[in-house]
Amino acid sequence: MIDKKQLTADLDLVRAKSPLVHNITNYVVMNNTANALLAIGASPVMAHAVNEVEEMVAIASSLVINIGTLSDQWIKAMLLAGNAAHKKGIPVIFDPVGAGATAYRTKTCLQIIDECKPSIIRGNASEIMALVNSQSQTKGVDSIATSDSAVDAAKLLATKTAAVVVISGPVDYITDGNRIAEVKNGSVMMTKVTGLGCTATAITGAFAAINSNYFVAATHSMAIMGIAGQLAAAKSEGPGTMQLYFLDQLYKMSGKEIEKHLIA
Amino acid sequence: MIDKKQLTADLDLVRAKSPLVHNITNYVVMNNTANALLAIGASPVMAHAVNEVEEMVAIASSLVINIGTLSDQWIKAMLLAGNAAHKKGIPVIFDPVGAGATAYRTKTCLQIIDECKPSIIRGNASEIMALVNSQSQTKGVDSIATSDSAVDAAKLLATKTAAVVVISGPVDYITDGNRIAEVKNGSVMMTKVTGLGCTATAITGAFAAINSNYFVAATHSMAIMGIAGQLAAAKSEGPGTMQLYFLDQLYKMSGKEIEKHLIA
Amino acid sequence: MIDKKQLTADLDLVRAKSPLVHNITNYVVMNNTANALLAIGASPVMAHAVNEVEEMVAIASSLVINIGTLSDQWIKAMLLAGNAAHKKGIPVIFDPVGAGATAYRTKTCLQIIDECKPSIIRGNASEIMALVNSQSQTKGVDSIATSDSAVDAAKLLATKTAAVVVISGPVDYITDGNRIAEVKNGSVMMTKVTGLGCTATAITGAFAAINSNYFVAATHSMAIMGIAGQLAAAKSEGPGTMQLYFLDQLYKMSGKEIEKHLIA
Repeated sequence: MIDKKQLTADLDLVRAKSPLVHNITNYVVMNNTANALLAIGASPVMAHAVNEVEEMVAIASSLVINIGTLSDQWIKAMLLAGNAAHKKGIPVIFDPVGAGATAYRTKTCLQIIDECKPSIIRGNASEIMALVNSQSQTKGVDSIATSDSAVDAAKLLATKTAAVVVISGPVDYITDGNRIAEVKNGSVMMTKVTGLGCTATAITGAFAAINSNYFVAATHSMAIMGIAGQLAAAKSEGPGTMQLYFLDQLYKMSGKEIEKHLIA
Repeated sequence: MIDKKQLTADLDLVRAKSPLVHNITNYVVMNNTANALLAIGASPVMAHAVNEVEEMVAIASSLVINIGTLSDQWIKAMLLAGNAAHKKGIPVIFDPVGAGATAYRTKTCLQIIDECKPSIIRGNASEIMALVNSQSQTKGVDSIATSDSAVDAAKLLATKTAAVVVISGPVDYITDGNRIAEVKNGSVMMTKVTGLGCTATAITGAFAAINSNYFVAATHSMAIMGIAGQLAAAKSEGPGTMQLYFLDQLYKMSGKEIEKHLIA
Repeated sequence: MIDKKQLTADLDLVRAKSPLVHNITNYVVMNNTANALLAIGASPVMAHAVNEVEEMVAIASSLVINIGTLSDQWIKAMLLAGNAAHKKGIPVIFDPVGAGATAYRTKTCLQIIDECKPSIIRGNASEIMALVNSQSQTKGVDSIATSDSAVDAAKLLATKTAAVVVISGPVDYITDGNRIAEVKNGSVMMTKVTGLGCTATAITGAFAAINSNYFVAATHSMAIMGIAGQLAAAKSEGPGTMQLYFLDQLYKMSGKEIEKHLIA
């Protein structure tokens, strides 16, 4: 289902254009996601002041919103930036971290989706289910549902919001409400490193900046994450070294590696 | 003094139960402590909004409060969460980072101890002394006192607050006011990595979540930290690689390694 | 131009005195800059509450201000701390991250320079040019100008502000308005790790704390950064491992390595 040549071409384009990806994200992963964006060839900027987010959006090629460590002042900035991005016509990629864990998170997610009209929403199974079914529960920020079980919720969410919806998990599912793509690459070791989900969302910001077919852009991002993750895990003795090898792999990723390792 | 079999059993229990540890901690170490908790087998969540901390406490098995980069809004959240945790009966583990360095820090520490009634307090020698003797001084967030010199202060603090008190240092001391346990594992290289003290506090959150004997839980945490630290240091050329090998070691820690390396 | 013996002597002095460097910096790099300061032998503290920054400055040997993820409350703390540092007579080292990217950033930079009178200002070429010419543009936080092209702007800024001005780039330029020093060490891989510019600023805080000749202190800092960067890059397969080897190299840096590798 994934065209290896097209994936390689998109990766080359990220590196050639080095799009400016504006991130309003959480404290835990800021460093990692900035480094992942640099490693893949994009240009990250982190800025969250209400005084400047609209101006930053004006020079950015995509906007990543991640509510991992949300608070009222940050939500204000997310909404301002998201509105500006939507008006400007650049993609908004949204990560509903911990949706379902608290009412505050779920409510904020629904407001961001409603007001900022994200082009792509990426979460784990629990989070995606919580956005569709308010009875659904999340264990903090970790999923307790399987990604398979969330596929129907993802399709429903995609249809309702006109966003491409991505469920990360052992198999990643990407849907626009009609089509479903699957990415089978990856490693269970990725769940032992904090914020690789957030990193997937950030990387999606890079690919969506250079390919306006967001279904394809999201699928390509998950494929690159999966390949880098499994190659890094193969070299690692644990989640510590895994983190660094993962960034190295993003940096070194080549058409040859995609050709060889993508499970398609 | 430390029972190797019981330590291994507790480690297995952390991995089996994967307790949700709610952290309200500082910006510097958030990523590291989340990763350390994942590596040891727990499930970390970082959340600090006053709008949601009580609800997050409601689904958590322990609460870690760390004032490393405190400000008024965060203190408000710490007190709310700490009160909720105390009422719910889950352990509060408190890290008084930089107590004694500024009046604001010392005052905040005393308020948190008074209102949230932590089950375990972990700091370096200077910090523990500052909580007992307001004349005591700290050099920023690094200790200028030896851990030995703080033992009397720790005992006094434990008696006054009914908390288990832990002093990190070349030798770690753990006391409930009567008993004193010592952990002699570790490496001086651990002082060259920022936030390994904070990581010890977070790991203590995992062990206290599965063992309500907080004296034992705190001792086990420091033992695991010490063993992982010395094994990581032995492989490292400096504090950079040390960080990652440390996470790998937490992840790989086995009964066999505990048996072999614990200085008991 | 750089005296290798004097550089080694300054490095030894940082390690011997372990100066307390107070950082008010951005969320993205806090962990890295704290670790870099520890690795080089200094003692970092991160504190940003308006309630305590003046008291923290009172025990610090230098103050690093970095606006990477600025917001109004943080600016207030930066100005308070900067004023206190200026009055106390300890060096203020200023990093104008993203100056030129938004009006908010440029305006804040000019206010901090005006009120806190930094001893050293370090930025990339775009940032330094934006501080002199308000028409100049920055791509987020990455430079679009070459460091050579910014030398005139740096000299002008140094003359106007009485600060030593540092431009980071393939060649680093350090000027007090009259003299210009060049540091040719380094590696292009350094641009693939987020925040190594911020790290340079933090390291400058350590050297300025032990050498009040700020032109020399800034030059020494950039030389150490460059040598550590190129040695780390030589060992690395990508920007992930690069980060850690870089910290290891700071930690291991010796007079012998300086003698051998400094391009002078």
